[in-house]
Amino acid sequence: MTTDSTLTPEQILTAAEDVLRRYGPAKATVVDIARALGVSHGSVYRHFPSKAALREAVTQRWLDQAHAELSTISAGSGPADERLHRWLATLFAAKKRKALEDPELFATYQALVGELSSTVEEHIETLIAQIAVIVRDGVDRGEFRPADAEFTARAVFQATAHFHDPVHAAEWKHDRADADFEAVWSLLLNGLRAG
Amino acid sequence: MTTDSTLTPEQILTAAEDVLRRYGPAKATVVDIARALGVSHGSVYRHFPSKAALREAVTQRWLDQAHAELSTISAGSGPADERLHRWLATLFAAKKRKALEDPELFATYQALVGELSSTVEEHIETLIAQIAVIVRDGVDRGEFRPADAEFTARAVFQATAHFHDPVHAAEWKHDRADADFEAVWSLLLNGLRAG
Repeated sequence: MTTDSTLTPEQILTAAEDVLRRYGPAKATVVDIARALGVSHGSVYRHFPSKAALREAVTQRWLDQAHAELSTISAGSGPADERLHRWLATLFAAKKRKALEDPELFATYQALVGELSSTVEEHIETLIAQIAVIVRDGVDRGEFRPADAEFTARAVFQATAHFHDPVHAAEWKHDRADADFEAVWSLLLNGLRAG
Repeated sequence: MTTDSTLTPEQILTAAEDVLRRYGPAKATVVDIARALGVSHGSVYRHFPSKAALREAVTQRWLDQAHAELSTISAGSGPADERLHRWLATLFAAKKRKALEDPELFATYQALVGELSSTVEEHIETLIAQIAVIVRDGVDRGEFRPADAEFTARAVFQATAHFHDPVHAAEWKHDRADADFEAVWSLLLNGLRAG
């Protein structure tokens, strides 16, 4: 049992995720979360001023889960083509894992995400900016053809939607999903590479 | 009023679409369709042996609507890059028109399509085969780099999912959708072109 004085935001978010998984986003309440933690609901409100703020924080954490790794790849060194491939493959693997290993929680988050379009838009802008860092490096080093990095990064992100946009999750369990990813990647890489 | 003896499959499919639009796929019945045409439901069954066969035919017609034009572009002559661009832009325009001008009917067909995965798979294979014809022409003429046409066509189709897959329909009304399409197209064209 957690005591009110030692309660951390992280513990609340973890408990919130459990409660969401169990009850779904429509039915989950702050009281359920407080009960799961053995604290008063006032203690939860001390960290998150409203149910809306808590929902947003828990969604943000979910969206950010693969970010640390992606951000490291984006900021790394080494050939741009290898980094971009690793970045895209890591994103695809993370999304696939979430969708296939815990489909119920994935569906729950899809519902939350549908209500928080500005949170999702920010998330997408962050991801595109990470791709742009790699594209800019590639162009600067002469590995990639000259291009507007932001513009190209957005095109790369959209052209790989099949392999990260949750609307395609039903297709990720197909045997050929990884081969399809590599085929799209090859085509994009040819498009990026300096002639 | 239509008489039983002059009733054509095309009239039945058009009436079926009206009925689907009005009642939705769950509630629409063959009796409703016969009533709309002023014929007995036996007359409808003379052309379509079951409700399932009728649903499949009406869905097939919906999927095929843009096919004639796409097929003409695919089989045409002229530079492969222009044809491929026209083919993809025509597909996107047709999908956008359906989704934005008659969202109710679009949703109805999405529900039908969800139940008929083999019909959809065939539809997709037909589209990919049309792209492959253009890619093969481009490779044969030295406009495109050497590549397996079927494999490349599938990659092109998947990389442009944003601009034809109905799961992305909500994004098609954005102001930047057409610019996004052109950005992805440029990247793909660079990937296809002979160096």
